[in-house]
Amino acid sequence: MSILVVGSVALDTIKTPFGEAQDLLGGSATYFSIAASLFDRVNLVAVIGKDLPFDKLEVLKSRNIDLKGLQVEEGKTFRWGAEYQYDLNVRQTTLLELNVFEHFDPKIPHEYVDSEYVFLANIDPDLQSNVLGQVRSPKLVVCDTINFWIEHKMDSLISLLGKVDILVLNDSEARELSTKPNLQQACKWIKGKGPQTVVIKKGEHGLLMMAEDRYFGAPAYPLEEIFDPTVAGDAFAGGFLGYLARSGSLDGKHLRCAAIYGSVLASFCVEKFGVQRLVEIDQEDLQQRFRDFKHLTHFEVVE
Amino acid sequence: MSILVVGSVALDTIKTPFGEAQDLLGGSATYFSIAASLFDRVNLVAVIGKDLPFDKLEVLKSRNIDLKGLQVEEGKTFRWGAEYQYDLNVRQTTLLELNVFEHFDPKIPHEYVDSEYVFLANIDPDLQSNVLGQVRSPKLVVCDTINFWIEHKMDSLISLLGKVDILVLNDSEARELSTKPNLQQACKWIKGKGPQTVVIKKGEHGLLMMAEDRYFGAPAYPLEEIFDPTVAGDAFAGGFLGYLARSGSLDGKHLRCAAIYGSVLASFCVEKFGVQRLVEIDQEDLQQRFRDFKHLTHFEVVE
Repeated sequence: MSILVVGSVALDTIKTPFGEAQDLLGGSATYFSIAASLFDRVNLVAVIGKDLPFDKLEVLKSRNIDLKGLQVEEGKTFRWGAEYQYDLNVRQTTLLELNVFEHFDPKIPHEYVDSEYVFLANIDPDLQSNVLGQVRSPKLVVCDTINFWIEHKMDSLISLLGKVDILVLNDSEARELSTKPNLQQACKWIKGKGPQTVVIKKGEHGLLMMAEDRYFGAPAYPLEEIFDPTVAGDAFAGGFLGYLARSGSLDGKHLRCAAIYGSVLASFCVEKFGVQRLVEIDQEDLQQRFRDFKHLTHFEVVE
Repeated sequence: MSILVVGSVALDTIKTPFGEAQDLLGGSATYFSIAASLFDRVNLVAVIGKDLPFDKLEVLKSRNIDLKGLQVEEGKTFRWGAEYQYDLNVRQTTLLELNVFEHFDPKIPHEYVDSEYVFLANIDPDLQSNVLGQVRSPKLVVCDTINFWIEHKMDSLISLLGKVDILVLNDSEARELSTKPNLQQACKWIKGKGPQTVVIKKGEHGLLMMAEDRYFGAPAYPLEEIFDPTVAGDAFAGGFLGYLARSGSLDGKHLRCAAIYGSVLASFCVEKFGVQRLVEIDQEDLQQRFRDFKHLTHFEVVE
């Protein structure tokens, strides 16, 4: 039942009003796989340069994460930097060096081709389709995308959507992709292109999911301090798909639970810089915060 | 167990991309009382000018709403106009004539002084305090405010907060009032000024409530078409306080239910222009949408 993720491994430099950190292990595949490894075995496909210090990968190796698919190329690792303002919704990209990631040509190792659960993290939709072509018969394909591909590779993205089961994206991306300002209309538009389930992440406002033609809404976990909102979306996807892979079921009930586990992982992710908080948590933390989400949202009819 | 509301009755002119309407019966007390009248008897205190056509009030008289406190003054009724853009989050005020509302001096009729449930809709906080002074011993006082009073009458507002049980306001107002960008910190700050319960309305993003020192979060009802977001906040307050008055209980369970009933009323309110939709709904509609909210937000642990 292992999970396959194809995405980026990067070195991040993050600055927020609460501090800054350089050369943190980052990238979508990193966050996703650490989150998903709390549920199941993860096979990671990404590319790094020879400059990436070996010990940085220890955090992945020490977990349920297989690195056979991590390609090491001549050159430098993808580097990304951002600075957040006080309200943490305003982000400025301060560094973007694609380096070896620019010509990433994902090769799925033979051992991974029978992966049942596939997460196509945000990369060029042509590469995402290419990866799918290398996997034999996945049970579930989840993909993410960003505004850049909507603006520059719309045809490729639409073609990809016809082959995925679940699209996970944020609210501004959903609006831009569908050209619908209303998120419910955006969900329906996206569903019309292929994915049976659409998950719209709204950051501090929680999420909206359309699954089995019904909506599910959940708030974000209320945190008084948010240190680093970077790639909480990939931690979300890791919790979401990780739970589904572990449970083996894809009905509405399980999809709702998965969305909450995704929110749980995202909420932990933002509590410290980089992957720092994610690697600390254990099964008990996971279950406790899941129960906290239940309490946060629960109401019953009392007359 | 009747409910007292003090606020505005106005004539509204609304334009949205889906249509426009002139001289609709509007104002905070109007929306609140129609919503609350689905739960309990409402006593309304507001002021209108002699120009307000008599038949416009029929919609209030035909319900559970007592108009003994509706003061009719020489002059014109408060008029307000707004235009909404496509995403309906962008509103431009196109008309603002306070008229008789400018010198509103709320007098609580003798029959109302024993009101147990009081809603102080958005008016000058000095007037809100003045109203409170005229009510004998209310069981629950809920108040609303807007940015204008935060910017121009902060001291009066802080003094008022010391006398109310629940503050209901929107997210930008909560941030401005507390000078905290984080809504959880804003809740705590507000609670420190007096109100035991804080309800932050986030429009299409639902709500965050702090009650009994715990957070409750709920999404907004997913609507594909929103015709008129005007004063959905007052319909929210009407459903919220109406339910509490009917149930007679103020514990956390009931406060959560009340927040959902508020969201139910707000969701109906925006479906048509003005009070049009609110006056159509009956108890069955109310219960059905409450159940819809339950389904929208429900998840359970499935392993």
